[in-house]
Amino acid sequence: MSESLVIASHCGPYRVDFDRVPEALAADGKPCHVIVDSRVADLHGQRLASILDSAASVLRVEATEDNKSLDAFPPYVEQLVAHGLRRDHVLLAIGGGIIQDITCFLASTMLRGVDWHFIPTTLLAQADSCIGSKSSVNCGAAKNILGTFKPPRRIVLDTRFLETLDRREIHSGVGEILKVHAIAGAHAFDTLAAEFDALFTDDAVLNRAIRRALEIKKGYIETDEFDTGPRLVFNFGHSFGHAIEAATHFAIPHGIAVTIGMDMAAAIAAGLGLEDGSAQHRMHAVLAANYQGFEDVPIPLDPFMAALSKDKKNTGAGQVTVILPQPDGGVARVVVAADQRFRDLCVDYLNHGRRA
Amino acid sequence: MSESLVIASHCGPYRVDFDRVPEALAADGKPCHVIVDSRVADLHGQRLASILDSAASVLRVEATEDNKSLDAFPPYVEQLVAHGLRRDHVLLAIGGGIIQDITCFLASTMLRGVDWHFIPTTLLAQADSCIGSKSSVNCGAAKNILGTFKPPRRIVLDTRFLETLDRREIHSGVGEILKVHAIAGAHAFDTLAAEFDALFTDDAVLNRAIRRALEIKKGYIETDEFDTGPRLVFNFGHSFGHAIEAATHFAIPHGIAVTIGMDMAAAIAAGLGLEDGSAQHRMHAVLAANYQGFEDVPIPLDPFMAALSKDKKNTGAGQVTVILPQPDGGVARVVVAADQRFRDLCVDYLNHGRRA
Repeated sequence: MSESLVIASHCGPYRVDFDRVPEALAADGKPCHVIVDSRVADLHGQRLASILDSAASVLRVEATEDNKSLDAFPPYVEQLVAHGLRRDHVLLAIGGGIIQDITCFLASTMLRGVDWHFIPTTLLAQADSCIGSKSSVNCGAAKNILGTFKPPRRIVLDTRFLETLDRREIHSGVGEILKVHAIAGAHAFDTLAAEFDALFTDDAVLNRAIRRALEIKKGYIETDEFDTGPRLVFNFGHSFGHAIEAATHFAIPHGIAVTIGMDMAAAIAAGLGLEDGSAQHRMHAVLAANYQGFEDVPIPLDPFMAALSKDKKNTGAGQVTVILPQPDGGVARVVVAADQRFRDLCVDYLNHGRRA
Repeated sequence: MSESLVIASHCGPYRVDFDRVPEALAADGKPCHVIVDSRVADLHGQRLASILDSAASVLRVEATEDNKSLDAFPPYVEQLVAHGLRRDHVLLAIGGGIIQDITCFLASTMLRGVDWHFIPTTLLAQADSCIGSKSSVNCGAAKNILGTFKPPRRIVLDTRFLETLDRREIHSGVGEILKVHAIAGAHAFDTLAAEFDALFTDDAVLNRAIRRALEIKKGYIETDEFDTGPRLVFNFGHSFGHAIEAATHFAIPHGIAVTIGMDMAAAIAAGLGLEDGSAQHRMHAVLAANYQGFEDVPIPLDPFMAALSKDKKNTGAGQVTVILPQPDGGVARVVVAADQRFRDLCVDYLNHGRRA
């Protein structure tokens, strides 16, 4: 157990404890309503028993995109009302990003705001999404079209939950860890890249990488919690990644799509002459190692371009806003004309880039 | 046209312009998505034509409780997505409290927040709800169980919309105006009570009362925007009023139920010996004049008590938190045991109080 990390937010400071459940969650006396990934509840029943047994209510949710769609919310609200949720109660999310999104959105909107706690159980959630305040909720065909800003009061980060993740899920989380390190600059990325293989075999290496990723992110979210300036670079790999997810009907897991998205961003930065190709040269091997197994999944161009142009970060027609590698080894937000040249670069990457 | 009122909020200052539409809403160049009460659009088509014709999209909504229920939101979101809503666009609400609630909730949650403007068209919305940041959304049988805090950037208050309101709607709005003045103290209430009849016959008197109500409220919401302390007195008449609305299946309009609720609060304060009955003595006649026609609507006790005990302002079991008149002529927040004595006082009022 290492020292806690404290994050400043518009709701006051909140804390990440690197600790073990259930011990780390000694009741503070407030009735607690649990929203738990049903798979996690099954796999870690014993570890969670005392938490679930003493909860004011337990809502088991399958972690699917449909279940974080606005249409799915009325039954969640009704269950919490039926179990007497009040403003001085607490919601506790146990699961990955989907459970986090559902709980954060409920905590933001029910009774105009109730506190929530979070036990992230995926690598994606532990190393990235658990801090930063944001929720994202789907509606109809529009992914992540709704959302709020409300951090949990407390996060307990117990890495034993990672033991039951499959290889895809670990690679997906490593994708976000790579992204955060790339944002911190060439040195941070190269240091992580040098121990890439050990991330999958050595818990101590992985735990250090998780903590470092959170520390890097902390600096950005404390400066720009509402995502209007410096923090936007955290979308590195994401505009392309989200379009890849949409175009493949989510056949590619989020963090893998982000890994491909970073590789694509590097290829496009070089293609547009924004830098000399050294980012691609430096990052491609480790990114490709992380999306291994997904090199040949077809990503059809038209749905990809349609999704990219609909990205919610865009503010004008005929152009896309993307995060691209820069000559200084970092990344920056760039508005690019969505013209034939850009389209050709996309075609090129989608057809050949992953096997380059 | 009188001077604008500027309100400070957590999103920066926002402005109420006492002005005429469409002139007051000269386009600021941002695409604008209108959400309009369908009845208002029909009744005031000519006045609104230039606004509706130049909008990026127009969503016509019937102002019913069902339409501000969470279940009703997915089509609203989908329509805005279909019409290309982006973060730098603006939502414009035209209508009363229901249209305000829908638009504010959408503006709070879509794309994690977009700006909105508001043209309130009911007296309730003009004199009270248009400022204060809050939205309230129903879900299933739970009224106003969800909500957010996000003020419009700009409010245009054009009293010509009041011309098409029926008498009930005017009395409903006057109920909230009476409430705001009661909070400001005996002098403010008595001054308004002295010109009560003129509110319905003299536009200048009504317009002055609207402005005064907003000025009184401004002081409270600037001090306590998130409704955790001083502002809570604005629930005067509301815990009882909401329970009356629920117990009568909304047969009694909101502001009328609040008027009855204030009368009930005065009766209960006297019954509990919290003050000597002078509040009831001072206020009953004008409150009764405002709920005239609703003196004999049956309000069944059990549903009333059930709704009261579920009020979201409560934080403990076996007690209710209500706003009651005080010996100093003002009102204050009081936690009362929900015991037999309290129940007897409720029965008494519900059966005989309105005809007292």
